[in-house]
Amino acid sequence: MKKIAVLHGPNLNLLGIREPNIYGDLSLDELNESLSAMASDAGFELVAIQSNIEGELVNALQEQGFSSHGIIFNPGGYTHTSVALRDAVAAIASPVIEVHLSHPDAREEFRRNSLLREVCVGSITGLGAESYQAALRYFMGQ
Amino acid sequence: MKKIAVLHGPNLNLLGIREPNIYGDLSLDELNESLSAMASDAGFELVAIQSNIEGELVNALQEQGFSSHGIIFNPGGYTHTSVALRDAVAAIASPVIEVHLSHPDAREEFRRNSLLREVCVGSITGLGAESYQAALRYFMGQ
Amino acid sequence: MKKIAVLHGPNLNLLGIREPNIYGDLSLDELNESLSAMASDAGFELVAIQSNIEGELVNALQEQGFSSHGIIFNPGGYTHTSVALRDAVAAIASPVIEVHLSHPDAREEFRRNSLLREVCVGSITGLGAESYQAALRYFMGQ
Amino acid sequence: MKKIAVLHGPNLNLLGIREPNIYGDLSLDELNESLSAMASDAGFELVAIQSNIEGELVNALQEQGFSSHGIIFNPGGYTHTSVALRDAVAAIASPVIEVHLSHPDAREEFRRNSLLREVCVGSITGLGAESYQAALRYFMGQ
Amino acid sequence: MKKIAVLHGPNLNLLGIREPNIYGDLSLDELNESLSAMASDAGFELVAIQSNIEGELVNALQEQGFSSHGIIFNPGGYTHTSVALRDAVAAIASPVIEVHLSHPDAREEFRRNSLLREVCVGSITGLGAESYQAALRYFMGQ
Amino acid sequence: MKKIAVLHGPNLNLLGIREPNIYGDLSLDELNESLSAMASDAGFELVAIQSNIEGELVNALQEQGFSSHGIIFNPGGYTHTSVALRDAVAAIASPVIEVHLSHPDAREEFRRNSLLREVCVGSITGLGAESYQAALRYFMGQ
Amino acid sequence: MKKIAVLHGPNLNLLGIREPNIYGDLSLDELNESLSAMASDAGFELVAIQSNIEGELVNALQEQGFSSHGIIFNPGGYTHTSVALRDAVAAIASPVIEVHLSHPDAREEFRRNSLLREVCVGSITGLGAESYQAALRYFMGQ
Amino acid sequence: MKKIAVLHGPNLNLLGIREPNIYGDLSLDELNESLSAMASDAGFELVAIQSNIEGELVNALQEQGFSSHGIIFNPGGYTHTSVALRDAVAAIASPVIEVHLSHPDAREEFRRNSLLREVCVGSITGLGAESYQAALRYFMGQ
Amino acid sequence: MKKIAVLHGPNLNLLGIREPNIYGDLSLDELNESLSAMASDAGFELVAIQSNIEGELVNALQEQGFSSHGIIFNPGGYTHTSVALRDAVAAIASPVIEVHLSHPDAREEFRRNSLLREVCVGSITGLGAESYQAALRYFMGQ
Amino acid sequence: MKKIAVLHGPNLNLLGIREPNIYGDLSLDELNESLSAMASDAGFELVAIQSNIEGELVNALQEQGFSSHGIIFNPGGYTHTSVALRDAVAAIASPVIEVHLSHPDAREEFRRNSLLREVCVGSITGLGAESYQAALRYFMGQ
Amino acid sequence: MKKIAVLHGPNLNLLGIREPNIYGDLSLDELNESLSAMASDAGFELVAIQSNIEGELVNALQEQGFSSHGIIFNPGGYTHTSVALRDAVAAIASPVIEVHLSHPDAREEFRRNSLLREVCVGSITGLGAESYQAALRYFMGQ
Amino acid sequence: MKKIAVLHGPNLNLLGIREPNIYGDLSLDELNESLSAMASDAGFELVAIQSNIEGELVNALQEQGFSSHGIIFNPGGYTHTSVALRDAVAAIASPVIEVHLSHPDAREEFRRNSLLREVCVGSITGLGAESYQAALRYFMGQ
Repeated sequence: MKKIAVLHGPNLNLLGIREPNIYGDLSLDELNESLSAMASDAGFELVAIQSNIEGELVNALQEQGFSSHGIIFNPGGYTHTSVALRDAVAAIASPVIEVHLSHPDAREEFRRNSLLREVCVGSITGLGAESYQAALRYFMGQ
Repeated sequence: MKKIAVLHGPNLNLLGIREPNIYGDLSLDELNESLSAMASDAGFELVAIQSNIEGELVNALQEQGFSSHGIIFNPGGYTHTSVALRDAVAAIASPVIEVHLSHPDAREEFRRNSLLREVCVGSITGLGAESYQAALRYFMGQ
Repeated sequence: MKKIAVLHGPNLNLLGIREPNIYGDLSLDELNESLSAMASDAGFELVAIQSNIEGELVNALQEQGFSSHGIIFNPGGYTHTSVALRDAVAAIASPVIEVHLSHPDAREEFRRNSLLREVCVGSITGLGAESYQAALRYFMGQ
Repeated sequence: MKKIAVLHGPNLNLLGIREPNIYGDLSLDELNESLSAMASDAGFELVAIQSNIEGELVNALQEQGFSSHGIIFNPGGYTHTSVALRDAVAAIASPVIEVHLSHPDAREEFRRNSLLREVCVGSITGLGAESYQAALRYFMGQ
Repeated sequence: MKKIAVLHGPNLNLLGIREPNIYGDLSLDELNESLSAMASDAGFELVAIQSNIEGELVNALQEQGFSSHGIIFNPGGYTHTSVALRDAVAAIASPVIEVHLSHPDAREEFRRNSLLREVCVGSITGLGAESYQAALRYFMGQ
Repeated sequence: MKKIAVLHGPNLNLLGIREPNIYGDLSLDELNESLSAMASDAGFELVAIQSNIEGELVNALQEQGFSSHGIIFNPGGYTHTSVALRDAVAAIASPVIEVHLSHPDAREEFRRNSLLREVCVGSITGLGAESYQAALRYFMGQ
Repeated sequence: MKKIAVLHGPNLNLLGIREPNIYGDLSLDELNESLSAMASDAGFELVAIQSNIEGELVNALQEQGFSSHGIIFNPGGYTHTSVALRDAVAAIASPVIEVHLSHPDAREEFRRNSLLREVCVGSITGLGAESYQAALRYFMGQ
Repeated sequence: MKKIAVLHGPNLNLLGIREPNIYGDLSLDELNESLSAMASDAGFELVAIQSNIEGELVNALQEQGFSSHGIIFNPGGYTHTSVALRDAVAAIASPVIEVHLSHPDAREEFRRNSLLREVCVGSITGLGAESYQAALRYFMGQ
Repeated sequence: MKKIAVLHGPNLNLLGIREPNIYGDLSLDELNESLSAMASDAGFELVAIQSNIEGELVNALQEQGFSSHGIIFNPGGYTHTSVALRDAVAAIASPVIEVHLSHPDAREEFRRNSLLREVCVGSITGLGAESYQAALRYFMGQ
Repeated sequence: MKKIAVLHGPNLNLLGIREPNIYGDLSLDELNESLSAMASDAGFELVAIQSNIEGELVNALQEQGFSSHGIIFNPGGYTHTSVALRDAVAAIASPVIEVHLSHPDAREEFRRNSLLREVCVGSITGLGAESYQAALRYFMGQ
Repeated sequence: MKKIAVLHGPNLNLLGIREPNIYGDLSLDELNESLSAMASDAGFELVAIQSNIEGELVNALQEQGFSSHGIIFNPGGYTHTSVALRDAVAAIASPVIEVHLSHPDAREEFRRNSLLREVCVGSITGLGAESYQAALRYFMGQ
Repeated sequence: MKKIAVLHGPNLNLLGIREPNIYGDLSLDELNESLSAMASDAGFELVAIQSNIEGELVNALQEQGFSSHGIIFNPGGYTHTSVALRDAVAAIASPVIEVHLSHPDAREEFRRNSLLREVCVGSITGLGAESYQAALRYFMGQ
């Protein structure tokens, strides 16, 4: 059974609580459950991890990155500043898609730049929970 | 019957011919047909337009932009430089998703900037034909 | 009878429809008619042209630019990016005034720069239809 | 009787003497008189003030800025550097139009930027005395 | 009896009138009185000066800067552009704290930079009248 | 009993040991005790937390950020680079004041920029222990 | 018989009329005829196309770009801004040499940058009609 | 009898008091007297003016600028920011030499740029009182 | 017995696995063992620590930084972004040499900048395991 | 008999040895001989000089620059950094064409800028030995 | 007998020939003679050296820099680019004044920056031969 | 017997004399002797060359660059500006290590950039004579 990993970065544990006009009112648990259901329907296992700590996300990428069919990664605020996460994505074997619930390009200037994006295979932004689902469907179709 | 428009910008008529290592070997007609099939299965009409001329794409956005349920727009090389297209996207009523077959952020520096992205509701890059299909599915789910 | 040309750039055909809080609710036809009336009262002919296509505006500048007493030019979104329009303005014999209905300097950063402005004889912004009328009056007084 | 204020910034007292190839040969008194005549013909009072001192212009904006129908402001060399004048324009109730006799954008690089322009309702440049007259006409037509 | 000087820069005479959503509705006189009361309770003399003119503030810094126990300085719009004020702060003997009622860093880009801040002993922003009071308390505690 | 939280970022556990010419010779425990005394005198509870790990500070902001009357935050070296901390400050309900013992603007270039400052209600720098005390007094006075 | 294509961009139809001190007094027809003569003497066919419209030049590159022995391209004002033309040059099979009659590097700052130059095999500037002839001779010698 | 004017900008009235390690311990009066003596020995009149106020320096340049043989100008902190002073120097008839006691290029970054320098006939820095004397000698030798 | 500490930053636990064309095929354990052998031969103790977490590296620097004869630090991806690590290096007593297996300057643009380098006593890059050995030899020779 | 000078800058003596995939396998002697033959056939004298030393190239420009019909100059690595060579080109009487065997614009970023180009009459890049020959033909045709 | 050295950089051997509108028509020999006369009148020896080669100027600075009372240095085009000359000026014992015949700040942008200026004791520009004479007089007066 | 070349750039002949607080008090001869001793002990020949002239260093790289086992290069002030030296390093066959006695990154801003570093195999800075010795040991171990 193939595994797909979902990594949620900093502050995503506040989903549904934090600025719902930007991020929607779905909680992180509800999001993970809907993705798990979609995955198991198609015969895939889904592993979901959240951390506020940059280095723990490096750890998670290393642990999931040699055994996963694909990794869906929402790096949150580390998107724009983390060379360590970028190096981790480049170091592992599994392909990574960067996702965002909101559309960072329509927000502050400093959210336009993504160090991670260059080493991912693709990126999906602004579609809410659909951002995750489209990535999941893409990996399941590979 | 709800209409969804697909707009293809400059050089996309060369799809399947031009740099297949970057853009894949699907032709533009084949891509349009696969999208039409998906749309009509779900009870939507799909309109597909291609032009190499910036102002004709402004025209197309204006013509489709008050009657479409959603617009899927691959602005190609105009992504990075066209204020006129940006103004057209902002002026119309239909929501627009920017799509790219390839992953511009992993390419040259001048492809990182997108004037259009800020006025779209989302963007999807790097998934090949799946970039279009994810956008289509998103609009059909709204 | 001396001729004065008015050139309207991209998206100005949507005048009255597009973002009326920024651009007002006068339609392009109404604006052209009011300018024509002012011109013919003073014994001038007024020619009004609109195009969404950069190169057609180059054509229009070349066609009007050797026989007009003056050209009133609202280059819209091409203001900030078009070297070709700038070269056309520099190449023709008629003096050109750049006009804008809104006040681009009070908007997004990328609207601050104008490649065209340097080769025009003057610029008028932010006065709505008055921007055009002041330019017209200036040319009629020369 | 409605009042319209005209504020002339630094070095405009040299009008007609200083670099006439750029600024024309009309003196400041002659300019003020022609504007006064235009205003009183239409039933408006015109107040004209000149100062070389940035803070005195701040004072003038504060003194005129709650009782004037409109303010025509040529900030001269302070255009490009004065946050204090910008704050004064933003703080007062009367609308302000920035005017220039010459066309700063066709001159040195450091004249391209205007801190004031963003808080004005419009700007008019390059039309000589007509720059002032168009602004006056605009306010009288409001 | 030790003296503490409070210097208010351009447009602060409009306090309570100008943009109350940003600057509050306390007038400058009321602010000065509350500071004087605090100071005299603790056995200090308080001198308060306001000017819209950059050079008069230079003068005030020079006049107060060799006899004051401390200077509380709100340089307003000159914060971001004045080398002359910076040189005056560096030239005098009394320590200076820069204060702002509002929080300039949360506003326009050009308000982020402070030439003065580097030569002050500290800065306090965003606390309204408390910005002044905290500075006063600091100097009284030295 | 209202709670006020004090968060100390990286390297502040070395207070009194590290570069005393910049940071003073008060230890972190001594600082916390003096703040606690001030708070309890006024009927407030004070919670003090220190961590060198960016993500743990995100955790602390989330844990304190819905139950505290105010948060006093010295983000240390994360001030200039952390989007994750900024997002956490923006996500929580409690108001945050950024404090620094030293005056970063008078130090290296890369310390001038603060990503956090924009989402705080104010900032206080350069006053040593007084920076914390002024923030505490401000919250206690609200 | 091998074909060589010559593409002239915007405003080159004004050759001989527009700023002759920069561009010389040869008309476009005369230039094309002299190139045709040179080509046919050496047993080559020469195709010459001019357009003011960016997208039509994209079309021309696509139409000539799979059957020509070489393409001589003077992109005029689009040199500095067009990603679409750059993509077209990269997409086609024929080698392209960028030519300019004048020497853009000795002119305005914004003419220094060429997005096209990187995807061409070479560039020739400043030699007037000789710029075209040297490119033609190069292709005929391959 | 020919007149040479010496203009001293902001904070130069503190000469001998302010940072003597940079500016020396000569007072402004002593400096002016030594220059007057040199001038009268050679049959020239010397006029010396000091002001901390930018606009008063504009006034002084205008008043001295049509009757002086030469102007020696130490613009102090206005060197780097004042377009108004630059415009005044360009507007007057007398040649101006910019002088500095210290060597601004060896100091902070923001002191490297001089808006004034471009419109002066020369500049002399770093020679202390000799900076003024060399300028004086130059004008007397013309 | 003198202690020398070796700190390995993020992703270095993948040594030998991750991109061996850049980083070589030696594992981290093998590297540490070869360094330990070198150190103990010369009568030094070697302590080796690896962490993917920025704040844990701050902790390690603080713990080793007052008792070590020298610290050899490969900060990996944190090299370019961490002010917190820089502050830790500056705060401790032991001298630090920055080492890299690869040669970051020959790689991507964003790897050129090192915030840490300025507070280290030296840096060694591009020599593979020799980078560490040269640093070790340097400390053992002091 | 008219003289044409060919100046080869640093490292061009390695032609045929150094990176032949970029610079071709023709040696410098072979290149000079082919140019000499072309020149003498047309009744011109050709002088060829190579130096690795910037100042010797300044000397050569001065020595050849008042007696040559034209100068063909490949400044190699000095293209991008030498103000001294630029000044020499501007100081001499003979016209200069800048040539490059390769196409610097298609290489590293720092090769895009040319200080020399602005003072030359034209430039030719990317055509290998043809770059020199086209320049030679241009001068022989003048 | 004290020695003063005059160093002339690249292209100054063309003085009187090269662009006399900028540099005047005095030859280098005439300039050196007039300086020698001035020096020997005052009992000083004057040594004058010219070279077009950066490294020879480094040599000259080293040779003169430990035995000269002062060095007058016109670095010409190396002013803006040479770190090696800067290091030489910093390394020697004699004080250096940078002189220019013309006024580089009034010329091209790239002439505004001077790497050398920071390590000199002063600079004099724009006074023609007087630039040298003022420096000479300064050293003779020390 | 394998040869290792040591190239010393500008001003290194002043070693021991120039700024000993930065560069130490070892003379260049002493440094070369210690390196020769180390090399001959290990059966290598060492060739040491110093020049202040950029082009002579290009020559030396070319002469040593096809017969040396390795080259140790301290480019001094040319590190930051020389494209010609970079091209020479790239053109030769021998591997090059860049060394510096001091730690340029801890000094002025313009010393941070190294054009050479990218084409070297490694770099060592800040270790004094050990910088050279570590490079030598590296080459001897290959």
